[in-house]
Amino acid sequence: MLPTPQKFFLTAASAEGHSQLTAFDNALLAGRIGNINLIRVSSILPPGAQYDPDLVIPPGSLVPTAYGYVISDVPGELIAAAVGIGFSAESFGVIMEFAGRCSRQEAEGRIEAMLREAFDSRGMKLVEVKIAGTEHRVEKIGCALAAVPLWY
Amino acid sequence: MLPTPQKFFLTAASAEGHSQLTAFDNALLAGRIGNINLIRVSSILPPGAQYDPDLVIPPGSLVPTAYGYVISDVPGELIAAAVGIGFSAESFGVIMEFAGRCSRQEAEGRIEAMLREAFDSRGMKLVEVKIAGTEHRVEKIGCALAAVPLWY
Amino acid sequence: MLPTPQKFFLTAASAEGHSQLTAFDNALLAGRIGNINLIRVSSILPPGAQYDPDLVIPPGSLVPTAYGYVISDVPGELIAAAVGIGFSAESFGVIMEFAGRCSRQEAEGRIEAMLREAFDSRGMKLVEVKIAGTEHRVEKIGCALAAVPLWY
Repeated sequence: MLPTPQKFFLTAASAEGHSQLTAFDNALLAGRIGNINLIRVSSILPPGAQYDPDLVIPPGSLVPTAYGYVISDVPGELIAAAVGIGFSAESFGVIMEFAGRCSRQEAEGRIEAMLREAFDSRGMKLVEVKIAGTEHRVEKIGCALAAVPLWY
Repeated sequence: MLPTPQKFFLTAASAEGHSQLTAFDNALLAGRIGNINLIRVSSILPPGAQYDPDLVIPPGSLVPTAYGYVISDVPGELIAAAVGIGFSAESFGVIMEFAGRCSRQEAEGRIEAMLREAFDSRGMKLVEVKIAGTEHRVEKIGCALAAVPLWY
Repeated sequence: MLPTPQKFFLTAASAEGHSQLTAFDNALLAGRIGNINLIRVSSILPPGAQYDPDLVIPPGSLVPTAYGYVISDVPGELIAAAVGIGFSAESFGVIMEFAGRCSRQEAEGRIEAMLREAFDSRGMKLVEVKIAGTEHRVEKIGCALAAVPLWY
C-alpha cells in the first residue's frame, strides 16, 4: 500500500501571473509549495498526524495534498480560497477546501459550515478547527490557493 | 516505484448536502469511501487484481481510485453516475466512468459502450463486465458518484 | 514517504473517439501511456531525473504524470496540447502544460513563455527546454493530449 501520511500543515497564498498556469504556480510558490509535486487528495487527515508548520519538503517530492484554488482574469475582482481541518478527539480529521469569487471571510465561513456538516454526517464530535485563508484583488491574472499538504 | 494495487471493488451512491463539497462528501460516505484519501487515477485495472467487495480500508489511507461524479443544485433534476470494468482473459482490465444529467440506465449503457470501444482500440477481447451505477433526484444540492477503489 | 521519481519522458498525441472519455483514452494509447494509471501531479521534475524516451512501464502501474489535454466535439475545430520541461544546471526542473483550441505552434509558444516566467519567479537560470506538442483537426470527438510521465 501507499504509506499513510503522518504530518501536515496549512497554507494559503495568492499571486499574479502572466498566464493562468503561472498565476497558479506563483501562488504555490508564495505558499511555499511551489517546488514539489502535489498529488490532489480528497480529503481526510490520517489519525495521529502531527501538525508541523515548519516542515521542509525536498524539491520534486510527491506530496499528497488537499487543495482548492480559483483563477480569475477579471481585473478588480476579489477572489479567495480557504482550507480547514476539523479534528476529532481520538480519530481522524476531515479536510474541507473552498475557493471562489468572494472575500476571505466568506470563504473561511463556508469552510467552518462544511466542517460542522462533515462531522454531523459522521456522527463525530468536532473538538478543534484549524483554518487558513487568503483573498486577492485581481490585477491582470490572479490566483488564490489554499492547501493542506500531507507528509511523513 | 509506487506499488501496483492488487485488489478492487466497485461502489456507487448518491446523497444530498448543504454545499457542493459536502454533497460530494456525503456521497462518498454513502459509498463507504468517505473516510479515506482518494487519489484519482486514469484508469486501468492491474493484471491479477482480485475483486474484494468487503474490503475494509483504514481511515486516512491513500487510495488510488477511478471515479466519476456529478453535482447538481437544480431541484428535481435527475443525475446519475456509473463506473464499469472490462476484463480480459489473461491481462489487465479497463475502467470507465461516466456521470451526468441522465438516468442510471443511460449512464450504465454509456459505460458498456465505452468499454467495448476501449477493448476494440486495444485489440483485446472483452470477456466480462462489472458495472455499478446510481441515480438521484436532486432535492437541494445532490451528488451522484461511482468509483473503483484500488487497494492492496 | 512516496518514492521520488527518477526517470521521465515526454509524449504528445491526438485521437478521435466515440465519446469524450474514449477520445481521451485513445489519445493516451496513441501516446503510449494508455495502459497505465496516471496520477496527475503539479509539476516539478525531480533533481537528477534521467530522460528515458524508451521507458516501458508495466500495465496498471501508478505513474505520477504532469499532463494537459483538450477534448472537442466541434467538427473542423483545431485543438492542440503541449508540455514542456525547463531544466536548470544543477537542481530540479519545472514542467508546464497547455491545451486549448489553437495550433500546436501556439501551444508550444505558450509553454516556452510559461517556462521562462517560472524560472524568473524562482530566480533560477533556464539552461535547456524540452517540448512536445500535438495538434488535431476534430472529425467528430477529438482529444489532444501532452504529458510528462515520471517513473523509476
